[in-house]
Amino acid sequence: MNNREPIITLTTDFGGRDGYVGIVRGIILALNPDARLVDIAHDLPPFNIETAAYLLKNCHGAFPPGTVHLAVVDPGVGTDRAPVLIETRSYYLIGPDNGLFGFLSPREIRRVIVLNSGKYFSRDISRTFHARDIFAPAAGYLSLGIDPTELGPARNKINREVIVRPRRTSRGLVGRVVYVDRFGNLASSITEKNIPQLPVTVYVNGVRVGRLRKTFGSVKPGRPVAYINSFGHLEIAVNRGSAAEYFGLTVSSGAEILIASD
Amino acid sequence: MNNREPIITLTTDFGGRDGYVGIVRGIILALNPDARLVDIAHDLPPFNIETAAYLLKNCHGAFPPGTVHLAVVDPGVGTDRAPVLIETRSYYLIGPDNGLFGFLSPREIRRVIVLNSGKYFSRDISRTFHARDIFAPAAGYLSLGIDPTELGPARNKINREVIVRPRRTSRGLVGRVVYVDRFGNLASSITEKNIPQLPVTVYVNGVRVGRLRKTFGSVKPGRPVAYINSFGHLEIAVNRGSAAEYFGLTVSSGAEILIASD
Amino acid sequence: MNNREPIITLTTDFGGRDGYVGIVRGIILALNPDARLVDIAHDLPPFNIETAAYLLKNCHGAFPPGTVHLAVVDPGVGTDRAPVLIETRSYYLIGPDNGLFGFLSPREIRRVIVLNSGKYFSRDISRTFHARDIFAPAAGYLSLGIDPTELGPARNKINREVIVRPRRTSRGLVGRVVYVDRFGNLASSITEKNIPQLPVTVYVNGVRVGRLRKTFGSVKPGRPVAYINSFGHLEIAVNRGSAAEYFGLTVSSGAEILIASD
Repeated sequence: MNNREPIITLTTDFGGRDGYVGIVRGIILALNPDARLVDIAHDLPPFNIETAAYLLKNCHGAFPPGTVHLAVVDPGVGTDRAPVLIETRSYYLIGPDNGLFGFLSPREIRRVIVLNSGKYFSRDISRTFHARDIFAPAAGYLSLGIDPTELGPARNKINREVIVRPRRTSRGLVGRVVYVDRFGNLASSITEKNIPQLPVTVYVNGVRVGRLRKTFGSVKPGRPVAYINSFGHLEIAVNRGSAAEYFGLTVSSGAEILIASD
Repeated sequence: MNNREPIITLTTDFGGRDGYVGIVRGIILALNPDARLVDIAHDLPPFNIETAAYLLKNCHGAFPPGTVHLAVVDPGVGTDRAPVLIETRSYYLIGPDNGLFGFLSPREIRRVIVLNSGKYFSRDISRTFHARDIFAPAAGYLSLGIDPTELGPARNKINREVIVRPRRTSRGLVGRVVYVDRFGNLASSITEKNIPQLPVTVYVNGVRVGRLRKTFGSVKPGRPVAYINSFGHLEIAVNRGSAAEYFGLTVSSGAEILIASD
Repeated sequence: MNNREPIITLTTDFGGRDGYVGIVRGIILALNPDARLVDIAHDLPPFNIETAAYLLKNCHGAFPPGTVHLAVVDPGVGTDRAPVLIETRSYYLIGPDNGLFGFLSPREIRRVIVLNSGKYFSRDISRTFHARDIFAPAAGYLSLGIDPTELGPARNKINREVIVRPRRTSRGLVGRVVYVDRFGNLASSITEKNIPQLPVTVYVNGVRVGRLRKTFGSVKPGRPVAYINSFGHLEIAVNRGSAAEYFGLTVSSGAEILIASD
C-alpha cells in the first residue's frame, strides 16, 4: 500500500435508505482523508452471502491492483465467524469470513489475517455493527500503510461453505440460481467450462428453457432463453422481459438449473 | 482533456443492487486512477430512453466544462445502434446512439465519433455489456488525454428518434409525460417556451388539472396542480401527494398532456 | 476551511432514480472541482424530517473535523423556513431550518447563518429546488474558503420542533418510533440514558415485546426483541426477520414505544 490516493471499494447489503454506508465512509475518511471511496453495490439482497459472493467474484477484478475491497453481508454478526483481511496476488479483501470470499481460489490467496488487534480495534466493539467498528478501521489503517500483520494473527484458510459447485447426476449437470439481477435475469452457479459438449438443453426447476444460445436476443420477445452471461456463467433471461417473473422465482427460491445433453 | 483529475459522470438504468455500475467504475479507474467518478443516477426506469434523455438534458449542464458524461440506457445492446462519443461545446458524452443524446441541438455538437477502434476496444466484445467493454474504456482513455479521433471514425449526425416534440392540434398543444420522479410528479415534453399566452388550462389524459400555476403550493393538499418545473418543463403534481397515483400513471403509460387556451 | 480537498457530504430524500442529487453534485463541482463529495444517504423516506434528523445525528460525527454536511429533506420548500448554515465545534451543516438540525445541542453550535446573500445566491431562485439554488452553492463557496458571514446574516437559534423527547407517564416512559431501517428494525426516540433501572419491559403500541436485552441474537428466529442499538437508542427487531412487518408498522405510523419497570 503506497498509493498516493488509495482506492477502497464498498460492497454491502446496507441499502441506500439508511446511514450505515455513510458512517462507514466517515470512519474511513476520518482515518485517511486521502482514501478514494468507490461503491460496488449496496442494495444486495439482505443476508444473502451466496449472491454477494457471486457479485464480488465478478466485480473485484476490474479494479486496479492494490485496491482494498471492503465487503459486508453478515447475517451472523455477533456470532463466532472471524473478521478477516485477505491479501491476494492483486488485492486486499476485508469483511466477515462467512463464505463471502469463498470464491477466491487457494492459489490466489497470499495470506489471511484475523482482525482482532487490540491496538487498532476498540475492545468495546458493538455486537451489531462490525462494519463500523472493525472493517472500516481495518480498511482505513491498511490504506495508511499499516502492515497487515499488525492488524491480527494469520490463519490458514478461509470459509468456503456457501460456494456450492454444480454436480453431475444421471439427469445431467445440476446447479442453482445464485443471482437475480435488476432486470430479472437468473444467473446460475454453472460456468462456461462446466458445460458439456453442445448441443445441450437447459431446464429451470424442471421447466424446459430450450437450447443454450449465443445471446438473449436470439428468441422472440417474451420468450425465455439460456446463454453464457458476460461473467462466464450460465444465465436465463426473457427477451425484453423478466425471467424471475416468468418462472416465479426470487434469489432465495433456491431454484434448480439442469443442463442435459441432447 | 487536460484536467489533473478529470470528472466522469455516470448515468445508467443498472440500479444499485447489481455490480454493473461497480465494474464500470473499476474499468475506468484501472485505466486512469486519477479519474473522479460522480453519479448522476442509476435507478432510472429500465430500458426507457426517453426518460433518461430528459434527465441527462437537465443534469449534464450543471457540471464544469470538460466533464465526461457516460450514459447507458440501452435496450438495443447487441443490435446495430452505434456506440458513440459526442463532443459538444462544453462536454463529452459517451453511450449508445439510440436517441439518448437526441436532446442535443445540432448547434451544440462539435463532432460525433463511432467507438470502434480495434486499438482501444477488444475485438472480442460481449453482446450484452457494452458499458464495460466499450463505454468505460472510451471514458478512461479520453480522460487520459487520447484524442477523440483515435477512438474511431467521425459520423455526421446523431439519432433523435425518441425526442417527440409537442404538436399543435385543434384542441390545443399536445405533449406527453416523459418523466415521473420519486415523488410522483409528472414532467412533460412541453417546455415553457412552447406554452401559448396565459391563461391556459391543463389536462392529463383528458382529465382537467386546472389553470397553469406559479407553484405547486398554490392548491390545497391532495389537489393536482400544473406549473413550470425547475428545468423549464410543464409538470403536474399533487400538493403533498403523488400525481402518478392520483392519475393512475407510470412513465410507460404514455399519458397525453393537453394545454388549451381559455 | 483550508483543506486541500474539502469533504462535503450529501443527505437527502431525493432517491436514486432522479437526477436531483446529480445536479447538486454538478453545481458544487462547478464551483469547486477539488471538493470531495461523499454520500450519507439519499433514499430517506420522502418529507420525513424526524427520520432524517435521527440519521444525521448518528452519522455526521463519524466524519473528520471540517467536513461540510449538506442535508435536504424539505417538505416546506418555498414556504418561510429559512435556509441556514450552522457552524458547530467540528462541522458545518447546511440545509433548511425546519427541524432537520434540531438534534444539535445549543452548546455544540457556534453560529447560525441565514443563507440569503444576494452576492452568492441568485435573486431569481426557484420555489422548488433550493438544494440546487441555495444549498449547493453555499457548500461550494464555503469549501472555497468564503467566510460564513459573507453568506448572510447571523441568527440566534435553530428550529427544534420535530425532536420530540420521551416523556414519563404513570404507565412508564413513552417514546415513539423515529426510524425504520432497511431490515425492518424499529429505532425509537428513547436513548440509553433515558431508560430507568433494569429490569424493564418494552411494549410497541401496547403489544409486549419482552425484557430489554443485550443483543438481538438473544431470542429465537422469528421472535421480537428490544435492545440498545449501536447509536445508543432503544430499538426493536425480529431475529432474522422484520419488526416492521411483525408489528405492521411504517415510519409514518407514529407507533408508541413504552418502557415499564417490572
